[in-house]
Amino acid sequence: MMAVLARSVLVTGSNRGIGLELVRQLAASPWPPHHIFATCRHPEGPRGKVSVDTVNVPSIQGAVRAVDSHLKDQGLNLLINNAGVSSHATLHSLDSQEMLSVFATNVVGTLQEFLPLLEKAAKGAGKEGLSCSRAAVINVSTKLGSIGLCLGVLQAPMYPYRASKAAQNMVTRCLAVELQEKGILCAAIHPGWVKTDMGTEEVLGCAPLMVEHSVRGILTVLASLSQDTSGTFLDWEGNSLPW
Amino acid sequence: MMAVLARSVLVTGSNRGIGLELVRQLAASPWPPHHIFATCRHPEGPRGKVSVDTVNVPSIQGAVRAVDSHLKDQGLNLLINNAGVSSHATLHSLDSQEMLSVFATNVVGTLQEFLPLLEKAAKGAGKEGLSCSRAAVINVSTKLGSIGLCLGVLQAPMYPYRASKAAQNMVTRCLAVELQEKGILCAAIHPGWVKTDMGTEEVLGCAPLMVEHSVRGILTVLASLSQDTSGTFLDWEGNSLPW
Repeated sequence: MMAVLARSVLVTGSNRGIGLELVRQLAASPWPPHHIFATCRHPEGPRGKVSVDTVNVPSIQGAVRAVDSHLKDQGLNLLINNAGVSSHATLHSLDSQEMLSVFATNVVGTLQEFLPLLEKAAKGAGKEGLSCSRAAVINVSTKLGSIGLCLGVLQAPMYPYRASKAAQNMVTRCLAVELQEKGILCAAIHPGWVKTDMGTEEVLGCAPLMVEHSVRGILTVLASLSQDTSGTFLDWEGNSLPW
Repeated sequence: MMAVLARSVLVTGSNRGIGLELVRQLAASPWPPHHIFATCRHPEGPRGKVSVDTVNVPSIQGAVRAVDSHLKDQGLNLLINNAGVSSHATLHSLDSQEMLSVFATNVVGTLQEFLPLLEKAAKGAGKEGLSCSRAAVINVSTKLGSIGLCLGVLQAPMYPYRASKAAQNMVTRCLAVELQEKGILCAAIHPGWVKTDMGTEEVLGCAPLMVEHSVRGILTVLASLSQDTSGTFLDWEGNSLPW
């Protein structure tokens, strides 16, 4: 299995589910990152090292300063935007406020605040090309955010969630184009239908995936990403998904 | 040229640009709709018949009641969601509030409020299959909202606008699936790079299209839509665009 050999990694929403397992597997890998920043909205217990509330800009800025001081000018190699909220709203139960609050968390997120740290890592890495060990933004997306698939709409209408994830995918792809020349890779990852609090296996009737299995796949995919796969939308097994 | 033979049409954002020209050409057609509701946020002068502010739900609900009373139980055949705002924000100039306000206008819009009137029209039309003369929601979108094309990102970053239009496209496609069995067609239309206040020809360096030409194309495309093209993303010439 290929491994992500990044000096520093920040994972949002890491108090549970996929985020927590990403942190666990990264820390347990044979060549773990020197710095793993496991962030969540309300850090409690030993796992929450830095507080990042992805809908609260001053909190993100505070986290950027804290992370920067830990990294001592070497920048951040890998930002995994995993924090997100779901919403099961249907067309009829949908209200504008819910739609906007889902957008606030899932799209606006940590968009720009961490970029200076990623640019620093990209410059200082002494590496060419794009990779997660140099500098990368990985947005945890979902197959439900594929407009082309428009998967299981009638079983799982979930309009705000789907729309916010399509918007996030657009941002991922625009970022990939804009940040390529700065040496920063961007990609969107569908983690599968994972058995977590947010898992959608019930509505889609799929056999749930164990979170360990999904995250092992995600980390293998991240390790394989390059210039050719920046700006793509892949699942945890590396299969390409339509936008 | 095929014509849209709808009994009633409502166009949002019809005080200028594409919206105004849609109303003008519909009214001037050989078989004009019996009812054209030309709506805009602040109706002034003879063209604004009903006030619809697409970010203000009570105002949409007021418009629904006004339109319903005009239509005397025959429902609304064709809703053209044309109102929208643009935003030239780049990655660095972007702020969360701007992103959310663009979403509020471009995505949340008139989403659900007019559906009962469209359902009424679909039931009462005495027609089978899907068409704009029976019942349809047309969302005016843009090629800049195509994640697949990710067109001219570096010339025109426009993150909030692009992301909001990708989200709107997702809603269009979900609506198409959900409303098909109710006899309501949904599609997204790219009007071309039209010479209007919101036109993007400068940033993309395209020759601008005259609004008359674009709208003639749009109305021809609307007249041709059917079950087979519900849920698609077409340009004003009827070409299919990637999501």
